[in-house]
Amino acid sequence: MPEFLHLLTSSEALDRFLKAVPESTRTAAEQIAVLEALNRVLFEPVTAPHPLPPFPRSTHDGYAVRAADTYGASPGLPAYLNLIGEIHMGVPAELVTGPNQSALIHTGGMIPDGADAVVMIEDTQVVREGEIEVLKPVAVGQNVLIEGEDVKIGETVLEAGTQIRPQEIGGMLALGVTDINVARRPRVGILSTGDEIVAPDEDVRAGQVRDVNTYTLSALVSRAGGEPVTRGIIPDRYDALFEATKQAHAEDDIVVITAGSSVSARDITVDVLDAFGEPGVLVHGIAIKPGKPTILAVADGVPMIGLPGNPVSALVVAGLFIVPLIKMLMGMERPALVPKVSAQISINVASEAGREDYLPVRLHITEDGLMAEPIFGRSNLIFTLVRADGLVRIPPEATGLSVGTEVEVRLF
Amino acid sequence: MPEFLHLLTSSEALDRFLKAVPESTRTAAEQIAVLEALNRVLFEPVTAPHPLPPFPRSTHDGYAVRAADTYGASPGLPAYLNLIGEIHMGVPAELVTGPNQSALIHTGGMIPDGADAVVMIEDTQVVREGEIEVLKPVAVGQNVLIEGEDVKIGETVLEAGTQIRPQEIGGMLALGVTDINVARRPRVGILSTGDEIVAPDEDVRAGQVRDVNTYTLSALVSRAGGEPVTRGIIPDRYDALFEATKQAHAEDDIVVITAGSSVSARDITVDVLDAFGEPGVLVHGIAIKPGKPTILAVADGVPMIGLPGNPVSALVVAGLFIVPLIKMLMGMERPALVPKVSAQISINVASEAGREDYLPVRLHITEDGLMAEPIFGRSNLIFTLVRADGLVRIPPEATGLSVGTEVEVRLF
Repeated sequence: MPEFLHLLTSSEALDRFLKAVPESTRTAAEQIAVLEALNRVLFEPVTAPHPLPPFPRSTHDGYAVRAADTYGASPGLPAYLNLIGEIHMGVPAELVTGPNQSALIHTGGMIPDGADAVVMIEDTQVVREGEIEVLKPVAVGQNVLIEGEDVKIGETVLEAGTQIRPQEIGGMLALGVTDINVARRPRVGILSTGDEIVAPDEDVRAGQVRDVNTYTLSALVSRAGGEPVTRGIIPDRYDALFEATKQAHAEDDIVVITAGSSVSARDITVDVLDAFGEPGVLVHGIAIKPGKPTILAVADGVPMIGLPGNPVSALVVAGLFIVPLIKMLMGMERPALVPKVSAQISINVASEAGREDYLPVRLHITEDGLMAEPIFGRSNLIFTLVRADGLVRIPPEATGLSVGTEVEVRLF
Repeated sequence: MPEFLHLLTSSEALDRFLKAVPESTRTAAEQIAVLEALNRVLFEPVTAPHPLPPFPRSTHDGYAVRAADTYGASPGLPAYLNLIGEIHMGVPAELVTGPNQSALIHTGGMIPDGADAVVMIEDTQVVREGEIEVLKPVAVGQNVLIEGEDVKIGETVLEAGTQIRPQEIGGMLALGVTDINVARRPRVGILSTGDEIVAPDEDVRAGQVRDVNTYTLSALVSRAGGEPVTRGIIPDRYDALFEATKQAHAEDDIVVITAGSSVSARDITVDVLDAFGEPGVLVHGIAIKPGKPTILAVADGVPMIGLPGNPVSALVVAGLFIVPLIKMLMGMERPALVPKVSAQISINVASEAGREDYLPVRLHITEDGLMAEPIFGRSNLIFTLVRADGLVRIPPEATGLSVGTEVEVRLF
């Protein structure tokens, strides 16, 4: 327990880290087509070049009328209106409905001049050619969308920092906005260290393991909206790591080093991260498991992160620190909502007070609802996370979870 | 209320629809690089070509020893062992530790022949060159991962139908698996109908509106793992829609038509969807709002969907029916977990019994926790969903929600 007491919590560490990243580190604008903009982040607000709807429209199939002509109408005493024609879809409404006149109109059709309401078709009867009976009165504006009811001209329809979903694409296209400025994807330089590490397509000899972190982190970075820049496998030597980091520091928006797993390899990483300018290393060690040996630094405006070498820690910590950093550099203002599902924990789990635990769990659908089964893996190999659907956070003040406790599972 | 009573619920409708899609409609395999496989779905299982770890490894920095040589060791009476060298990372362990011998080892290092445990560095002292004191005994296997502890050779590490996350990429690369067969993305032909609809880059005249559905649905399809095939804007005439649908039916895995908004346009859509073979239209109308006029059909093995024309209904219904269909065609077996957050509803909301409502809400962070504010939009223009963070489902048996009710918000 004492070993975690002097360490920052993950939210304190994140706060200290993000506050030290200057505004100037934000990525610049890049113009792209709206059709290609899914998941990108708006660099500047989008305003409406015209109102929506751009003309008054009917919300129902029915007849465009003057509301006053229907007042008092009832099934016993209908209002009789002349039917002067039909409003065709997609062309300007050229009819003008005068007193006691009506025009057939479809949902979405343009309200003709003279009309101020629409009687729904089910509230009418056609008795003779050229005449309808209205069985129910309508008020002025009833079943009509007025021009600009949804969006007014000049209105800010999307704020800077908005992440684009399918509906934002639709909203922009509805307004004829086909090209926009989005934040350039932050470049995230990823360095993997360790004398035992070889590339995934190489044969491994005894004593060697394949590089996993470069590619799990690349995938996580892509998914968060960043552009991964793989900077290779670096030997556990200060000079080699310094040179590789120098290039990443000069060219990338974020530098990530996964440290070798030994203490001496981690010492090299912290020394390198402290060698690129002010303020340097801000956080060294966090009260979380997995992920205690995490290092957070900012050097000359470039955020730099030293991750533990084991793949489970690296991926969990990256989710906590790199993902929010990427979003911040793209100007996302609203705190991201972490998607979660509720479940019951399937067994008792112990946890040290003062330490925040992120426990990988697999979800099972049972008669009693969703059950979260912890995945324990002594080896911390990546398959611990392959077997998991998400993570359960055990807060620092808890000393564990009892079987059946309701927990929130953060989905990967 | 009565208008919804004879209609299927959304889950009944989905069930009837998916059961009518034959196994042969599943998409075929396609070989791709693991590095490009994020979010794709495995076509066949992945088995381990070798064990993981492939050799016994240390879980700590320390000394590789024979456990028996440490039995009874204590700070007052340490075990003295000869230090015969260091296990270097990334090369085979060439030392052999005999009785009363030890070798310096790093986390992840290969256990040398002769050793069967690792003493952690903090439980030792170096007193003389070439000798260590062990202050605490270790058991056989302590601090050692044995060969295959994580994954055994030939073990199925990933099932067919698994969607690939960053950790699956890492897991496969750890095993040297660099190319895999994934399910081809289902092609989803998207047809937009309506005489009033024009392309987003065209100028709109009075009476016209820009095509939104083609692009919101394309984005949704891409995000779900499908390949959108935009098949243009079709006039509200049977023959035109039949011809365009015929091509989509022949070439695509799924056909989606967004109907014009008038009753007659919807009638044309259902007639066309029923004209391409058995069993034809399975569901016409569902007890949900928005989305009541949804049409579900299967014709000669091809699933076909008629969506309501208004963009809010189209996108909500597509999320309920097209997304699960795409996942099924790619062979995803496990029911997808819908990411949700819990919130309190900010006002009273009425709902008809017998009808399932999907209410767009915006989330606000307040002192009392997350608050879900319903977005009401009479116009059902796409901006209703732009303003929303997710949907709250009001089940058919409810007649509304009271202010403060805890609800689950399905995030977009």
